[in-house]
Amino acid sequence: MVMTGKKDAVAPRLYDTPPSVRSVEKRVLIGSRQGAPHFVMRHFTIAPRGHSPEHAHPWEHEVYILAGRGRVRTDDAATDLRPGDFAFVAPMDKHQFVNAGDEPLEFICVVPLAGDDG
Amino acid sequence: MVMTGKKDAVAPRLYDTPPSVRSVEKRVLIGSRQGAPHFVMRHFTIAPRGHSPEHAHPWEHEVYILAGRGRVRTDDAATDLRPGDFAFVAPMDKHQFVNAGDEPLEFICVVPLAGDDG
Repeated sequence: MVMTGKKDAVAPRLYDTPPSVRSVEKRVLIGSRQGAPHFVMRHFTIAPRGHSPEHAHPWEHEVYILAGRGRVRTDDAATDLRPGDFAFVAPMDKHQFVNAGDEPLEFICVVPLAGDDG
Repeated sequence: MVMTGKKDAVAPRLYDTPPSVRSVEKRVLIGSRQGAPHFVMRHFTIAPRGHSPEHAHPWEHEVYILAGRGRVRTDDAATDLRPGDFAFVAPMDKHQFVNAGDEPLEFICVVPLAGDDG
């Protein structure tokens, strides 16, 4: 059995508690509810002027940029992200994803099961 | 330290041994060489009339369609795939990804470290 679905048919969860997090939508595409044994594929949409929290945690991120213009900030650098770019955030690396453009920033972000709250 | 890169700057590996596999390019974006501790993010491009092997293995796939028109075949079904669609292939499920259109089929496919040959 192969499970398939459409991103737009997945209900988003909104994270919007400024100033730490602003205008972030998360869709869990493939996770423990779908039977995934190890890692979770999520789709994020960050609105213009929005951003994820600046934080660090014991699990990694593997990110692929789908649309928009973004930036990933770390302790000592900021790197622009465009569609077709990827980013690896190692465990315990401080990081923040920011929409740096005028259109929604969309990306895939994969984390271990322990790193997603569903 | 956050590692970033561009998909087009990653050298592809070609899989083309008809009739089992035809016109499949793989780019390993994030894997053990980049320090990934658990899973590998790969980017695949399958040319028109191309396909991955029909096979099953002990590890899962988590797939997100980026471009083109595809189809995933299983023992008893075939499901069309369009950009924005996702697919979860559970461990030991037989599966085959097929380009069902006239443009390159592009997708992200994440597997555990054990499921990628680098």
